[in-house]
Amino acid sequence: MNVIDVIITKRDGGRLSDEQIDWFIQRYTAGDIPDEQASALLMAILFRGLDPAELARWTAQMIATGSRADLSGLAKPTVDKHSTGGVGDKISLIVCPLLAACGAAVPQTAGRGLGHTGGTLDKMETIPGWRSTLDPDEVMRVLADSGAVINAAGPDLAPADRKLYALRDITGTVESIPLIASSIMSKKIAEGTGALVLDVKVGSGAFMKDEARAHELAETMVGLGAAHGVRTVALLTQMDVPLGRTAGNALEVVEAVEVLAGGGPSDVVELSLALAREMLDLVGLDRVDPVDLLHDGRAMDAWHALVRAQGGDPTAELPHAREVEVVTAPATGTLSRLDAMAVGVAAWRLGAGRARKEDAVSPVAGVTWHATVGDAVTEGQPLLSLHLDDPAKLPEALDALEGAVEVSSTPVAPPPMVLGRID
Amino acid sequence: MNVIDVIITKRDGGRLSDEQIDWFIQRYTAGDIPDEQASALLMAILFRGLDPAELARWTAQMIATGSRADLSGLAKPTVDKHSTGGVGDKISLIVCPLLAACGAAVPQTAGRGLGHTGGTLDKMETIPGWRSTLDPDEVMRVLADSGAVINAAGPDLAPADRKLYALRDITGTVESIPLIASSIMSKKIAEGTGALVLDVKVGSGAFMKDEARAHELAETMVGLGAAHGVRTVALLTQMDVPLGRTAGNALEVVEAVEVLAGGGPSDVVELSLALAREMLDLVGLDRVDPVDLLHDGRAMDAWHALVRAQGGDPTAELPHAREVEVVTAPATGTLSRLDAMAVGVAAWRLGAGRARKEDAVSPVAGVTWHATVGDAVTEGQPLLSLHLDDPAKLPEALDALEGAVEVSSTPVAPPPMVLGRID
Repeated sequence: MNVIDVIITKRDGGRLSDEQIDWFIQRYTAGDIPDEQASALLMAILFRGLDPAELARWTAQMIATGSRADLSGLAKPTVDKHSTGGVGDKISLIVCPLLAACGAAVPQTAGRGLGHTGGTLDKMETIPGWRSTLDPDEVMRVLADSGAVINAAGPDLAPADRKLYALRDITGTVESIPLIASSIMSKKIAEGTGALVLDVKVGSGAFMKDEARAHELAETMVGLGAAHGVRTVALLTQMDVPLGRTAGNALEVVEAVEVLAGGGPSDVVELSLALAREMLDLVGLDRVDPVDLLHDGRAMDAWHALVRAQGGDPTAELPHAREVEVVTAPATGTLSRLDAMAVGVAAWRLGAGRARKEDAVSPVAGVTWHATVGDAVTEGQPLLSLHLDDPAKLPEALDALEGAVEVSSTPVAPPPMVLGRID
Repeated sequence: MNVIDVIITKRDGGRLSDEQIDWFIQRYTAGDIPDEQASALLMAILFRGLDPAELARWTAQMIATGSRADLSGLAKPTVDKHSTGGVGDKISLIVCPLLAACGAAVPQTAGRGLGHTGGTLDKMETIPGWRSTLDPDEVMRVLADSGAVINAAGPDLAPADRKLYALRDITGTVESIPLIASSIMSKKIAEGTGALVLDVKVGSGAFMKDEARAHELAETMVGLGAAHGVRTVALLTQMDVPLGRTAGNALEVVEAVEVLAGGGPSDVVELSLALAREMLDLVGLDRVDPVDLLHDGRAMDAWHALVRAQGGDPTAELPHAREVEVVTAPATGTLSRLDAMAVGVAAWRLGAGRARKEDAVSPVAGVTWHATVGDAVTEGQPLLSLHLDDPAKLPEALDALEGAVEVSSTPVAPPPMVLGRID
C-alpha cells in the first residue's frame, strides 16, 4: 500500500478501496503517514468527495481507532442530539435533562466553542463544581441513575478525529461535507447512542450559510447513522437570528434554566420541544408530551440530578460580569434584522469565545438582547446589553455589531424555526 | 498574512495576490510554513490552476529565492533547449556542442533521470573524468571558451523548486500544468539563458500522454518565458516510439557521438536539426545550416571541447555491459509498434534508471533496438538487445517488454517527429 497511490486515486476522481481507507486511517492515526501526505488527500477529498460506501468505511475506521461504547446494559433506550453550531444555542442544556425526565438515557459527548459559536462544555463549566471528565464506568453509572450525561470526548472516542480535525483546521480542509459528517458522526456513533437527532443550522450565524449545502450535510449524516445502526433524524433550523435572548456561557445557562422552569423565550422553547419530540419518537416514548415535564417540575428535577451527578451545585449563583454596556434601538418600529453572526462575533470578542482551541473563555462575557426579529421596539430603548469584565474589549465588540440591527416601519414576521426534516 | 487564507482563496477558485504569492514562496522556502499547509495549497492549485499573471509571479518568486545568472558579459548570444523527458532522448548531447559550433553559447542546466526517462547528467557521467559541478565562475569561463556547458543545478538556482518538487513528488501534486511549467521555467530562466527551445514530448513514453495537455503545457511555458524576457519556442514531438536505437546511459553517448560524426539514426538527426534550427533562429544565427557542421567535423570538435572543459576524456572508451541478451523478431513484415514506455521501463529495470532520486544508476545497462517502426523485419532476426551486468534483472525487463512489439504484414509509415510548434 502506497499513500501516493491513495492520493492520486482520489485526486483523479476514483473510489478508494476499503483496504486503502482502513490503511490510511489506521496508519495516519498511528503517526506512520506524515501530515503533508494526509493534507493532500484531505484536499483531494474536499474537491472529489467520498461516495456513501467510502464515507461509511472511512467513518467506521475512525471509530475503530478507538472503541464504540456499549450501552446495551442500560434498562433505558439511549438517544442523543447534536447541533452543528450556532449563536445562543443552549438547547442541549434543556433537552438532555428533559429526555432523562421522559425516561430515556442521553449519553451526550459535547464540545467546546470555537470562533463565534458557543460550546456546551463551556456553558456547563460556569456551574461551580461541575466537571466533564467522566470515565466510561462513571458514564454508565450516571446514565443509570439520572438518565443524562454531558461529557467531554475521552481519549478512546474516535482518536483519528482529533488528529484529522487538527490537520483540517490548518489546511483549509474543514469545509468538506463528507469530512464534516465523518467527524461529527464518528464521535456520536462511538459514544454508543442508539438514536440521534441532528440540529443542522442554516444561516449567517451557522457554519452552513446555504440551505442546499446544509440539506446535503444532513442527508449525509443521516445516511451515516443508518449505515452504523444508529436511528438518525435531522432538522434543518434557522440561524440567521440568534437563538433566545442570550449568547455567552453563564448567560445561556440562566436562560436554559428559565426554560426548564416552564418559562424562557418562545423560540428556545419551540426548538427544544421540536428536537425532544423527534428524540422521543425515535425511542418509542412518543406517548410522553415533553411540554408537560417543563411545566410540572420534572425537567427541572432532572437538571438538578444531571448537574449534581457531575459534581456541580445547581443552586449556586452563577458568576456575572462586572460591567454591562447598553446599546439602544436606533428607531421605532419592528425589529427586522438581528444578525446571528454579528452577535456571535461580538460575544466572542467580549471574551465568551475562543480563536484557538487552547484559549480560555470568560464565563461571564456575552451579549443579551431585549427584543428579537418581529418584536416592536422604540427608539432609545435598551436593545442589546454587552456583558464584559475587560473594558478594552468593548470597541471591537461594538465594531462587530455595526450593521447587525435594522428596524422596519412595517410589520415583520419572525423567521420560521424549522426549515426542513430529513430521515 | 495567513497561510490558511491563501489556501482557502485558491481552494475556492480565487486569484492569489502578488503579496500572497511572494509571501508563500519565500516563507515556505525559508522553512516557516509547514509542509502540510504547502501540500494543501499545491493540491488546491492542481484543481484550480494559476492564471498567467499568478503563474508569472509564482515563477518569479521561485527564481528570487536564489538568483538569476547574468550572462550578459559573454560576447555570444545565449540559447538553451529543454526536453520534458522521454526514452532514448540524447538530443542535448548533440545540440549543445552543435550550437556552440554555430557560434552560440549554451548554458544548459541538466537533470538526472527518474523512472523510465533518462537524464542528461547520468549519460554524460559515463564519460571518464567528466563532472557537472561547475561553480558560476567556471560556467562563465567554459561558455566563453568552448561555447557550451552541461551543468547540474547549483544551490542558488531556484532553491524553492527543490523544496516544492520534493513535496509534490510525495503528495500527488506533480501533474499540475502550472506547477510543472514553473518548475522547469524557474530553473531555465535562473540559469540566465536569453532564448530557449522546449521539446515537449507527447506519447506513451512521455510524461504527457495526451496532445492537448502537452499543447497546454507548451503554451504555458512559452508564455512564462516571454513574461521573463526569455525568447521561447516549443516543439511538440512524438514519444510513442523511443528515439534513435538506444536507451541507456553509455549506450546513448555512443549514439550521440555517431550523430556528431555525421551518421546516426535518421530520427535523432531530424529532431536534433529541427531543435537546432529553432535555437539558431531565436538568436539570429539562421544563416548557419547546422547540418553542415555535423558533416565537416566542427560539431565533433565542439563536443571534444565541451567534454574536456568539464574534465572528461572524449577519446576514452566507454564502459559496456558484461552480458547482452537478444530478443528476436516474432514475425516477418513491417515493425508497426515499438512502445516507448515499455522500452524505457525495460532499460530502467536493467539498471539504467532509478525509482528514487537517491538511487544510483548503471552506466552500462540499457536496451538497443535494431529496427524501428516502419522498418522491415524478418522472423527470428535480432530485434532488441538487452545490456546488463546483473542477470537477476533480466526477467523483470522481459516482462516490461511484453506486448511492446508488433509486426504488420502491410507497410507502416514511421510516426511524424514534430507534431506542432508554439511560439
